[in-house]
Amino acid sequence: MEVSKAFGQVLRLVRTEAGLTQEKLAFEAGVQRNYISLLERGLHEPTLSTIVLLAQALNCSATSLISEVEMRLSFPSLER
Amino acid sequence: MEVSKAFGQVLRLVRTEAGLTQEKLAFEAGVQRNYISLLERGLHEPTLSTIVLLAQALNCSATSLISEVEMRLSFPSLER
Repeated sequence: MEVSKAFGQVLRLVRTEAGLTQEKLAFEAGVQRNYISLLERGLHEPTLSTIVLLAQALNCSATSLISEVEMRLSFPSLER
Repeated sequence: MEVSKAFGQVLRLVRTEAGLTQEKLAFEAGVQRNYISLLERGLHEPTLSTIVLLAQALNCSATSLISEVEMRLSFPSLER
């Protein structure tokens, strides 16, 4: 699995579990709503700063997001 | 502390602890040597794919690199 696709899956999962819309997450993280959509579809690759901003807005750590991404890279059947 | 500076510190620390030169790490990760230098000086911001490639070349996880970065962002006195 591509890194960007794995990150997009994790972002969408954590965002929906946090009960946030793409608009709300974008507002909280200070990014464009369309950018969240691109990330979740795996069409754009986040920089480390973006990952940190998103984690803060999601009230989690960048470490936990990346840990989930690496799980998906190792075990693609986790896809959800 | 800026995210890029924190990442640069962590990259340099882990690379030297692994006994790798910038040239060797660049070769293993498939990036330019100059790019490693820019990252370590906090002058460039890595994408998630780059972090994953560097972690593989350093024989560690991206999660552990990001965990170290977040420690530095929370406790800047860790600088070393």
